[in-house]
Amino acid sequence: MTTHPLVVTAGDPAGIGPDLCIAVAAGATPPDFVVISDADVLEARAEMLQSDVKLTRIDANQPGAAAASELRVIHRPFPSPVVCGRPDPANAEALLNGLREAVAGCRDGRYSALVTAPLSKRTIIEAGIPFTGHTEFLAAETGATLPVMLLVAAYLRVALATTHLPLRDVPDALTQDGLRQVLTILHADLQNRFAIREPRILVCGLNPHAGEGGHLGREDEEIIRPVVDALCADGMDLVGPLPADTAFTPVAGPRDAVLAMYHDQGLPVLKHAGFGHAVNVTLGLPIVRTSVDHGTAFDLAGTGKADHGSFVAALELAAELAARP
Amino acid sequence: MTTHPLVVTAGDPAGIGPDLCIAVAAGATPPDFVVISDADVLEARAEMLQSDVKLTRIDANQPGAAAASELRVIHRPFPSPVVCGRPDPANAEALLNGLREAVAGCRDGRYSALVTAPLSKRTIIEAGIPFTGHTEFLAAETGATLPVMLLVAAYLRVALATTHLPLRDVPDALTQDGLRQVLTILHADLQNRFAIREPRILVCGLNPHAGEGGHLGREDEEIIRPVVDALCADGMDLVGPLPADTAFTPVAGPRDAVLAMYHDQGLPVLKHAGFGHAVNVTLGLPIVRTSVDHGTAFDLAGTGKADHGSFVAALELAAELAARP
Repeated sequence: MTTHPLVVTAGDPAGIGPDLCIAVAAGATPPDFVVISDADVLEARAEMLQSDVKLTRIDANQPGAAAASELRVIHRPFPSPVVCGRPDPANAEALLNGLREAVAGCRDGRYSALVTAPLSKRTIIEAGIPFTGHTEFLAAETGATLPVMLLVAAYLRVALATTHLPLRDVPDALTQDGLRQVLTILHADLQNRFAIREPRILVCGLNPHAGEGGHLGREDEEIIRPVVDALCADGMDLVGPLPADTAFTPVAGPRDAVLAMYHDQGLPVLKHAGFGHAVNVTLGLPIVRTSVDHGTAFDLAGTGKADHGSFVAALELAAELAARP
Repeated sequence: MTTHPLVVTAGDPAGIGPDLCIAVAAGATPPDFVVISDADVLEARAEMLQSDVKLTRIDANQPGAAAASELRVIHRPFPSPVVCGRPDPANAEALLNGLREAVAGCRDGRYSALVTAPLSKRTIIEAGIPFTGHTEFLAAETGATLPVMLLVAAYLRVALATTHLPLRDVPDALTQDGLRQVLTILHADLQNRFAIREPRILVCGLNPHAGEGGHLGREDEEIIRPVVDALCADGMDLVGPLPADTAFTPVAGPRDAVLAMYHDQGLPVLKHAGFGHAVNVTLGLPIVRTSVDHGTAFDLAGTGKADHGSFVAALELAAELAARP
């Protein structure tokens, strides 16, 4: 089996993305990856960080293999000078082009999987480009109908039925159709990507105590339960709707993933339990994509204080998921 | 200093409340407590559990001191026969009367604090008695304006700005006035009950990413931030509104408590981190009251399988809180 490198997009160059790439490449046994970014920016950053990493500009079609402490860069220059901590909308288009190139390379087999360092939504929006996040951008780029956000940290896998929307909009955003699609994608990707033959998924209720029989809301019985029952009848191993404060305890029994109904029902637990080594995986795409679980940390760029634990975990998980037949 | 025993209400007699009292009294160094319940029920349960605990019926005014393996009971018989696992609305009124007696005893100084074993809201409602929970009942009974729910597990303290209501009703239930009251009570009780001189409280946002500057909802900036800023100006040490998935990580810095805006934003983390030994404390009452963090577990009553970890923790925390001057 020929192996292909992972491709990393270094994210907003004013943030810690370049720092993470440099730190990992300089480490003892870095995963096999190439980075798409501005090689001059990376060189300047390596100097700031007093890193002895060796940057090599490579041809996107012939990545070769990295030597010790070598960082292979597909050089895509930014039009505007990069200053640590000062995101610049003038570089937004180049940044997104790097992402497009990385996606194309994953689809044509040059790269095994995509790992994204953080960018700032605000900076891209300020450039006049409509943008709601990496996940949605990658879905549009690959023609995926419904990306599903899965966070992984050690023994916990938490997927979200809805993602980035005001809390007030969550109950109406939760539909039987949407939930069925999310569960179908989650189930299929746990089988195909994570090689779990019969994944058991715990499904949280929407309301506290999963609605307590209708006393605390009706969506649990009217929207979630019918979908869970129907998919169970089709052979899936689902349990729910469960009170969210039970679903994450041993009482709820063994599980391969928990499906939370919304962002702050699932991610506080995940980030608490997996602080510093949580990985964001986008399911439902034709490519494997993982990401760090944190933001650009503009204030830490170039300081050497950025923790690369989540980035290493994202690279390792991407390699693992990409290795499935 | 004269010490007074804790008073325990054994909760629904068809649930595991009696089992918990028996297990703890039979333990090596039980906390000093008396229980208000039906002594015949407790005796029958002790037999089912093959416990050698010795039950003593005591006078509510003269609790005395417990010998080894002695369980002191203030005998308040239930009108209807008690069957494990079969809650009976006919016993609901007697159950609430036991709670009333326990509260009165705490207020007049016979008992140092109240620890409640679980009851079933549904059973009480089925008896035709309007009831939304222990917390609200105790607030009404003591004339407290706003009870605040605080969960404690090891190193985590999580309070809730809103408690048991459908998710859809949460955003409108969150008001500046209510939030100010909750924070004031939480702050005062952390000082007075927990003896934390200058408590630092991390305040979660309502929306994911604390609204991300208004892109994901406006309540964070329009309701939460003004209250946090005003109370900080008054001298409180508050940080927020913070993204909930940051607030529970070390990145948010040291804290004495986290205030979550709603049930499933805070309790999944708490129960995950403190599974089996979490304690529910009601702040804002004129008495000290703690409770287990779990339900009646009707299916486990009389089986010997009930875990009394949370009950022991509730007794110990009540004794600790009551010992403050």
